[in-house]
Amino acid sequence: MKYIISVFIAILFSLPSFGQKPRARDLGVPFVGKPGKYNAITDVKGVEVGYSTIITSKGENIIGKGPVRTGVTAIFPRGKSRKFSPVYANWYSLNGNGEMTGTTWITESGFLETPVMITNTNSVGEVRQAVLKWFVDTDWYSGDKEWFTYPVVGETYDGLLNDIYGFHVNEKYVLEAIQNSSSGKISEGNVGGGTGMVTMGFKGGTGTASRVMTIRDSTYTVGVLVQSNFGFKENLLVAGVPVGQELRDTLNPKVNKSPESYRQEGDGSIIVVVATDAPLLPHQLKRVAQRVPLGIAKVGGIGANGSGDIFLAFSTANEQAFTRTNNVRVETLSNDQINWIFQSTVQAVEEAIINAMVAARTMEGINGNTVYALPHDLLINTLQKYNRLNK
Amino acid sequence: MKYIISVFIAILFSLPSFGQKPRARDLGVPFVGKPGKYNAITDVKGVEVGYSTIITSKGENIIGKGPVRTGVTAIFPRGKSRKFSPVYANWYSLNGNGEMTGTTWITESGFLETPVMITNTNSVGEVRQAVLKWFVDTDWYSGDKEWFTYPVVGETYDGLLNDIYGFHVNEKYVLEAIQNSSSGKISEGNVGGGTGMVTMGFKGGTGTASRVMTIRDSTYTVGVLVQSNFGFKENLLVAGVPVGQELRDTLNPKVNKSPESYRQEGDGSIIVVVATDAPLLPHQLKRVAQRVPLGIAKVGGIGANGSGDIFLAFSTANEQAFTRTNNVRVETLSNDQINWIFQSTVQAVEEAIINAMVAARTMEGINGNTVYALPHDLLINTLQKYNRLNK
Amino acid sequence: MKYIISVFIAILFSLPSFGQKPRARDLGVPFVGKPGKYNAITDVKGVEVGYSTIITSKGENIIGKGPVRTGVTAIFPRGKSRKFSPVYANWYSLNGNGEMTGTTWITESGFLETPVMITNTNSVGEVRQAVLKWFVDTDWYSGDKEWFTYPVVGETYDGLLNDIYGFHVNEKYVLEAIQNSSSGKISEGNVGGGTGMVTMGFKGGTGTASRVMTIRDSTYTVGVLVQSNFGFKENLLVAGVPVGQELRDTLNPKVNKSPESYRQEGDGSIIVVVATDAPLLPHQLKRVAQRVPLGIAKVGGIGANGSGDIFLAFSTANEQAFTRTNNVRVETLSNDQINWIFQSTVQAVEEAIINAMVAARTMEGINGNTVYALPHDLLINTLQKYNRLNK
Amino acid sequence: MKYIISVFIAILFSLPSFGQKPRARDLGVPFVGKPGKYNAITDVKGVEVGYSTIITSKGENIIGKGPVRTGVTAIFPRGKSRKFSPVYANWYSLNGNGEMTGTTWITESGFLETPVMITNTNSVGEVRQAVLKWFVDTDWYSGDKEWFTYPVVGETYDGLLNDIYGFHVNEKYVLEAIQNSSSGKISEGNVGGGTGMVTMGFKGGTGTASRVMTIRDSTYTVGVLVQSNFGFKENLLVAGVPVGQELRDTLNPKVNKSPESYRQEGDGSIIVVVATDAPLLPHQLKRVAQRVPLGIAKVGGIGANGSGDIFLAFSTANEQAFTRTNNVRVETLSNDQINWIFQSTVQAVEEAIINAMVAARTMEGINGNTVYALPHDLLINTLQKYNRLNK
Repeated sequence: MKYIISVFIAILFSLPSFGQKPRARDLGVPFVGKPGKYNAITDVKGVEVGYSTIITSKGENIIGKGPVRTGVTAIFPRGKSRKFSPVYANWYSLNGNGEMTGTTWITESGFLETPVMITNTNSVGEVRQAVLKWFVDTDWYSGDKEWFTYPVVGETYDGLLNDIYGFHVNEKYVLEAIQNSSSGKISEGNVGGGTGMVTMGFKGGTGTASRVMTIRDSTYTVGVLVQSNFGFKENLLVAGVPVGQELRDTLNPKVNKSPESYRQEGDGSIIVVVATDAPLLPHQLKRVAQRVPLGIAKVGGIGANGSGDIFLAFSTANEQAFTRTNNVRVETLSNDQINWIFQSTVQAVEEAIINAMVAARTMEGINGNTVYALPHDLLINTLQKYNRLNK
Repeated sequence: MKYIISVFIAILFSLPSFGQKPRARDLGVPFVGKPGKYNAITDVKGVEVGYSTIITSKGENIIGKGPVRTGVTAIFPRGKSRKFSPVYANWYSLNGNGEMTGTTWITESGFLETPVMITNTNSVGEVRQAVLKWFVDTDWYSGDKEWFTYPVVGETYDGLLNDIYGFHVNEKYVLEAIQNSSSGKISEGNVGGGTGMVTMGFKGGTGTASRVMTIRDSTYTVGVLVQSNFGFKENLLVAGVPVGQELRDTLNPKVNKSPESYRQEGDGSIIVVVATDAPLLPHQLKRVAQRVPLGIAKVGGIGANGSGDIFLAFSTANEQAFTRTNNVRVETLSNDQINWIFQSTVQAVEEAIINAMVAARTMEGINGNTVYALPHDLLINTLQKYNRLNK
Repeated sequence: MKYIISVFIAILFSLPSFGQKPRARDLGVPFVGKPGKYNAITDVKGVEVGYSTIITSKGENIIGKGPVRTGVTAIFPRGKSRKFSPVYANWYSLNGNGEMTGTTWITESGFLETPVMITNTNSVGEVRQAVLKWFVDTDWYSGDKEWFTYPVVGETYDGLLNDIYGFHVNEKYVLEAIQNSSSGKISEGNVGGGTGMVTMGFKGGTGTASRVMTIRDSTYTVGVLVQSNFGFKENLLVAGVPVGQELRDTLNPKVNKSPESYRQEGDGSIIVVVATDAPLLPHQLKRVAQRVPLGIAKVGGIGANGSGDIFLAFSTANEQAFTRTNNVRVETLSNDQINWIFQSTVQAVEEAIINAMVAARTMEGINGNTVYALPHDLLINTLQKYNRLNK
Repeated sequence: MKYIISVFIAILFSLPSFGQKPRARDLGVPFVGKPGKYNAITDVKGVEVGYSTIITSKGENIIGKGPVRTGVTAIFPRGKSRKFSPVYANWYSLNGNGEMTGTTWITESGFLETPVMITNTNSVGEVRQAVLKWFVDTDWYSGDKEWFTYPVVGETYDGLLNDIYGFHVNEKYVLEAIQNSSSGKISEGNVGGGTGMVTMGFKGGTGTASRVMTIRDSTYTVGVLVQSNFGFKENLLVAGVPVGQELRDTLNPKVNKSPESYRQEGDGSIIVVVATDAPLLPHQLKRVAQRVPLGIAKVGGIGANGSGDIFLAFSTANEQAFTRTNNVRVETLSNDQINWIFQSTVQAVEEAIINAMVAARTMEGINGNTVYALPHDLLINTLQKYNRLNK
């Protein structure tokens, strides 16, 4: 009976007309820390996010035909209307079973020079190519005739639901994600690069969250966007509550997996992008990226071997940091004041992942493979059982 | 009233004659995973641990006189009676506000050549020196006349309780820790290098735990030892339960801190040593070390700026791996089978930290500074409140 | 007289119709160490190299039309007929102003799973995409229905000569390089990905060299392939002789550079691939990759800011190292015997770069930009002047 | 006959009263680039260097008695009279068969907080301890009652000449090096930590050099100090000339090596400290440290397995960079202007090593082991033979 009700509620929620979608906080998940206005990466001023979501047909997977369940996400640190305008950045990999192009130059230079794009594993090349063409077409380098750069493109694998070997992401969708990018409220769940993703045994996807803090009279924001596609169901924790254990036998994915694969539960990935307006230097941003695993751990992640857990952190402060000629003066937060940035990062990563799961809807993909959304009612029940529901 | 009872119980527990000290599991903390026989790093065959604990006098701190609350911990991967016998190893730093000597050669060679010593921040040099002298005295290199090596010595800061600027650790204590080292059951809490440590607002120290798992018909053990001295009280989680929030106003450390210090709550450190008998190559052991932060996150750590969070992982398998001449054949676990090692590491780190806190007793150190033990009864009550007490 | 003869011979060799092109050794450059049969990366058994070279039209650069001076290089560690067959590998970046996709997974797993492709900076995405399609088309994963992998694609910038913003490398050329790949003697100079490259002020491109050595009764080979596009003319050293200083004012590139570029002399890159049949583990291969800069230094490189100096090392030994299931036993060279591998790497890198320069021919590219080949006769003269010509 | 003369000259040079010792430039070695006033690390304003040199007795090695051939070097980035005053810093290891304590915190924080000390391999602990005591004694933290820090102590192995297992470096000598430290002209060769060292088959030790350059109207200095103890004689290059090959059979070290050692030629180490007044951020200083191997390569180094090749770079600019409270503004050189720093580093490292060899005198150590100085006359002859002598 409980099951029937939950399915009913799940169906209700999945109706697009249902109105304002609840986020994890709305359901009563007791997160710690104070979010920004949108509780999103776009709370960091200047950051724009855009998606293209590609969903076509149902049924058997015919390579090159579909069904398609994929997309592209674009993140512009200083907005797409600002041409070439590098931000200080750095990155860390918890488990490098994944790809993020452009990272070697980030390490070396301390700068992120391009938008951050996220898509499926097999479309990284196409997206990289399309970004470069867009640079040429929009004169991104403002008349410079001999620029070179290395677009940053991350990915996670959606082959459980998507005809990933059919290579359906093309230039059109990349441009769509770029054009769509905007500040303010952004969508979560089955959108953009996160369309076909799975998290901790339930439907995952794109999620976001933010934290606002005061450090010595200045107010800073940390915003996070995740493309979440990782984890073992039995390990799922929500606000410390063992939801995965509780829901272990509920709504298991309906997967007609072909027997010829070595893939295992837990294979997947999570790309995390951390934005902040705090004035952090590249080596400080590396430290921020290294805190991302702490947020993942709180949801139950272990950095599994099959997972590409790659994290990028950038700071929109120091707008004049990049020059090719003169020395510049840049601002830096004292290391001794950085703890709130770390703590906010951990908190926002945890919430962004749960937000992705709460927003995602049940999806049927190739070959009838179905991944169920985390049932909101059962989540609420479980939090209540452990006296952790925020009322 | 509750407070009085808890103090009473705390006093009771702190009596050495109270009998078998309970560990976190005994109190009902619901950890996941199957521990080894001793639930200790010594469950990995060959590993020996020894302590010297130095506690003298009370009252005002007179530099060079005391009070002293410190010690030394020694870990021998293959036992102290086996002379020079390197093990494959690697390491990772979540936050490098600390020291572990010898790591550069571990990265380069893939081998740990010496015991792992842990002490206080200001005694690293003394301990390193004493280990070298012990090598000379015991002909550790079996007749080689021109050996060189780089003893591995880690540290955490105990200056809140200990006369750390008095440099009380000397060769005698190092030898004592070495001589004491043994397999089997080992002590926790205010012992060895962990004697004067603080964790998540309560008394910390040395802790240990282990996990046993089966991977494709082979049984492997992961054992962990922590010297735990980190964290903010309000962040303390025990099995996901927000114990720190609950006990926020309880038993705060009585600290007559001099106003002239920049130290903050959360400054501290955690050294983690992970041992396993699974046949892991150096690059795989790096991966294990990178999972340690996930266990720390579950207790509420954020890798604070003031914390030296440095982690070493070694494998006792492949006893013949080290040669100076011939090629050798070594065994390696398939990457695709490594998830259980990762998961066990995360679980054992979490439990070892809580074990350190449960075992530690309230301690008064220099200038009357007092750090209270985590009250077992309040812990139990809190777990119960959140329906997480294992009965 | 000897001088006259040598100049005569040099002129003879430099005629395109002469047949067998001379390599640096043939000209009398006194390299140290013993090369393999082909003095090429293909001296490492199993390694296959293929090129596609794209050269079209002359004159003004019209983006999308040409002139085109570019190409693709493919390196198969165990030959293209061996399907999915990972080799132990690792990498290092001296200066990361470049891209090599797939490196994050190499660091993590210790394995190189794909061929190594090298092309121009703006074609990395296209080549990555084409390799994945080729995997699908050739059932590279032998029936596995849910594989994922991260093709390794490196690049250097050929925009001085090539219509690089016209994106002329497409799938056809990638397949051509793949199909062409073979063992044995391989071409150098203006071929494959190296077609439009510049080195130390002269025409650069693709170069190769090898060393054979005996370590405790076993014979090992180290083979190197470079795509060389870096350096300041005045720094050029050949066998320690300051050739760049001597030829400073000779044959400067004829470049109608548009004034609107920030590019400087020295911007460029060098991709180096080191192959060996010595049984090295991933952490040992990292050490090999870290020695590549020593070879670059001997030619006069400084790892300039505009240069993408990224190096990959792999070992074809341990053919059974990769499994998804059982433990395996792998062979490893003792660290104490690794010096010859290091020395051979340094020597072969130095020679491969000079080989690339000696083989390259003067090339006119976009807008009449012309890069001159290192004049063999002047090189010989200079070596003679410094008493360094090998007779 | 030539041999006799050279020995005679060597003896002459080794007389302390011989007058101004020639440096490599004085002998006619044709280095590239413009040195500072002292051609020393002390050309960087503020940098002070001090030595203590310990030489006692001759004859058979009795452990604990001698003969002693060792010492301590101290480098203060901003002078010893400036108390706690961190400088931006970073480090790199070409081959980590060595120790440099304190590096983990440098990586994390971006700051070097202590002087850089260099000694022999077995005295690292003693020196670390003595530095901490000196901090206590001199109130280095200006009243802070709970500071902690991690002294930076590097080392190279002098056991061929020195009773290294006798542990002769003690607090007295550490304080002596500290007290002696000064700006201006500094000694080279058999002094300080470099006293008992061997380089490329000849006597090595301490060396220094500097370069001055103009970058966009600002003048910057790069200064280098090496403790040089590495390399194979046959690989020695001086200004590109194969001096090692030429002098291969000349003046081989007279070594009564005990047969019971695994040590090989080439075992050794080189510690390099690079100072600059250019305003470089920590991630830029890492790049500088990564260029050090390029200078070592020019002398013939290969980063041998037995060598601890660890490099530290710091910038004395941005004096206000370190705070515990407020944000600060710091200056940074544009990445696009950094090449001269890189080039100067490579040049100064090369020259500093040769300077160490030129300054070092033949030394007899334990058991009559004798390492000969590079004969100046033969060096000059060889440069002349290859038309490379600067007249």
